[in-house]
Amino acid sequence: MKYSELTKEELSALLETQRREYEDVAAKGYKVDIARGKPCYEQALLAADMLQGPAADQFPKAALNYGNLEGLPEVRELFAKILGLDASEIFVGGNSSLNLMYDTVQRGLQFGFGGCEPWNKTKIKFLCPVPGYDRHFGICEHFGIEMINIPMTGHGPNMDLVEAYVASDASVKGIWCIPKYSNPTGETYSDEVVERLATMPVAAKDFRIFWDNAYCVHELTDSPDKLANIMAIAKKAGTEDRIFEFTSTSKITLAGAGVACMGMSAANLKEALSHITFQTIGYDKVNQYRHLVYLKDPEHIAEIMDKQRAIIAPKFAAIIDAFERNFGDDCDIAKWTNPKGGYFISLDVLEGCAKEVGRLCKAAGLTLTSAGATYPYGRDDADRNLRIAPTFTNADDLPAAIEILVASVKLACVAKLAEERA
Amino acid sequence: MKYSELTKEELSALLETQRREYEDVAAKGYKVDIARGKPCYEQALLAADMLQGPAADQFPKAALNYGNLEGLPEVRELFAKILGLDASEIFVGGNSSLNLMYDTVQRGLQFGFGGCEPWNKTKIKFLCPVPGYDRHFGICEHFGIEMINIPMTGHGPNMDLVEAYVASDASVKGIWCIPKYSNPTGETYSDEVVERLATMPVAAKDFRIFWDNAYCVHELTDSPDKLANIMAIAKKAGTEDRIFEFTSTSKITLAGAGVACMGMSAANLKEALSHITFQTIGYDKVNQYRHLVYLKDPEHIAEIMDKQRAIIAPKFAAIIDAFERNFGDDCDIAKWTNPKGGYFISLDVLEGCAKEVGRLCKAAGLTLTSAGATYPYGRDDADRNLRIAPTFTNADDLPAAIEILVASVKLACVAKLAEERA
Repeated sequence: MKYSELTKEELSALLETQRREYEDVAAKGYKVDIARGKPCYEQALLAADMLQGPAADQFPKAALNYGNLEGLPEVRELFAKILGLDASEIFVGGNSSLNLMYDTVQRGLQFGFGGCEPWNKTKIKFLCPVPGYDRHFGICEHFGIEMINIPMTGHGPNMDLVEAYVASDASVKGIWCIPKYSNPTGETYSDEVVERLATMPVAAKDFRIFWDNAYCVHELTDSPDKLANIMAIAKKAGTEDRIFEFTSTSKITLAGAGVACMGMSAANLKEALSHITFQTIGYDKVNQYRHLVYLKDPEHIAEIMDKQRAIIAPKFAAIIDAFERNFGDDCDIAKWTNPKGGYFISLDVLEGCAKEVGRLCKAAGLTLTSAGATYPYGRDDADRNLRIAPTFTNADDLPAAIEILVASVKLACVAKLAEERA
Repeated sequence: MKYSELTKEELSALLETQRREYEDVAAKGYKVDIARGKPCYEQALLAADMLQGPAADQFPKAALNYGNLEGLPEVRELFAKILGLDASEIFVGGNSSLNLMYDTVQRGLQFGFGGCEPWNKTKIKFLCPVPGYDRHFGICEHFGIEMINIPMTGHGPNMDLVEAYVASDASVKGIWCIPKYSNPTGETYSDEVVERLATMPVAAKDFRIFWDNAYCVHELTDSPDKLANIMAIAKKAGTEDRIFEFTSTSKITLAGAGVACMGMSAANLKEALSHITFQTIGYDKVNQYRHLVYLKDPEHIAEIMDKQRAIIAPKFAAIIDAFERNFGDDCDIAKWTNPKGGYFISLDVLEGCAKEVGRLCKAAGLTLTSAGATYPYGRDDADRNLRIAPTFTNADDLPAAIEILVASVKLACVAKLAEERA
């Protein structure tokens, strides 16, 4: 149904219906949260074995003492296989890749990269593909880094725009990328996009790509997207110092108690360690080794991720199904993604309605990621994008979440159209 | 024996003896390391039970997911008891208190404290009690913070000097303190010193005491030193925002896989969290909870520390005994501390000899902390202080370490005296 083609009278009648529907749902007293990309308890329990072992005498002695600033060698090997890098290019950190990203930006600000002056010395800018990840944008905003929106295209950021900015403006020092199953759109960067990012001419010698490969093994289907290996391309082009890769096991093992890592060129790793050696004697190698024993190798990780998928894919499917039932058939008030992996569904509603949908959902007991959060400074000028995080809610609560969400979208959008027509 | 009272001939003969003794020891091909304050493997094994449990269903659900930025409530309670603070004043972090200190200094530089301008905006200074902890000094040096030496007195830093600096110079923004069993001198700050630190007038509104209470429960005798509660005193004086406390379980459970915490005023914690919330979603609460189950309460921690002491106290005793046998009897080439807790023995040799002792030890197979490391910029102008870390070496290797160390001290000092007399 094309809502925009309804007559004034039809809209007016529909508005009454939608208001009643919404009020009925709101009266049910539901309480559901689909705001954050958090795994559910059942997912955490998949890693239960990891919590009880191995025995102390099975740990390498090095894991039980200070040292190994760059991480346990065996764990560097494992992450190297996951990211398609060499073990010598891997830094294994603590439990949080966000922490590694924040600290990396902070090092750029305080010390600078590759002999260039510290980013703190001037006003700098980052390119921010939108919609994107609010915590990336939060780091920039907190540090006073100016953010420039770059629209996503369905296969990565608009590269014509990216290239124009980085070629012409030396104050553009970085770009945030979630190259596989991007948060929230679920799209994977095409080979061409990856190639252009790795090889494009840049005005700033210290331009850096923050390549947050958070969902590198996080499949929802049997036909995974293939992401090109940006580091391999960059090495051929001699631009490998441009790349900072990140990933973690937060959504493979335990959110908040996983292991995070960075991948980078030899020169960048040497530089990073020259600072990190003053920050810590080393990250938690007991947790690193525990992960190695549990995860084993990429093949076994794929098996674990199949079990994760068995828990979460039905939640994605339930929401997509509901959207198709309610907004399918060439509907013009809602468009959504059907991701092949990752943690989010991106929902675009009628322009100017996202905030109102969020307000209606909240009033009816459903917490969504704040409308606007997927844009720098929380500003979605079209007021259109909503991020749906299906994983945390238990399956029993999901119908309630869907009921509220659908009723809220319909009410907000129909009200908007009716108002415009009035 | 007073070496300085020997005649030229006596010294010359003694030098020959000492050279032979040293060469005999060096020829034995020992290889020992007493450089760093690392626990030994046997100490790590005390925490073996902690590595294998509890089972997943015994963890609070919150511990297995993102969140609780300030740490698990139960773990905040435990650290509050250890430090004599309120749980609301505790931030529980990752595995490294050094990391918390570095990040705190970095926040001061980047953002400033309490509404004052960021420390990066001007040239700032820290007071550094000497001899002290090389990693504290390393943070300052790396950030370009000017360090001012403050001599230790046997019961804390020289407070007349401290007070004079902080009262007169608003660019003095911090002081590093290890108030109990200080690294390396083993001294504990007297009540008067703690009181004066907490209440002294300061020129800089954003002056901060970095109170690294690393050895708060790390006893080597049955008569522990008592450290006054600086936060309690500061609260009475209205200076509580001056205090950043730190400690960790690195030397209670596992070095490199313990839990670190900060203690601070409500205002400081609020400010810290306003930054940390952009840095991470939270530290590893699985490890936090694992620690809670293992450590239980301060009484049980004391029992664990008794077991730790049973392993390490004999190592301290063996070194002290050897020093007494070799340098007792009013000797003027070596003075050492006999600490009641902590991880170090501080050895002062004849002025101008510490580097040579280090060189001789290394050549004979014994690694010491570099001479000078206990001073800012690695500069011990008197070239006198050496830090001995007895814990890591296994007991079997300790006699070799002692043999090399004693022979090296004697040779270096006698050679120096002989040269002066020549």
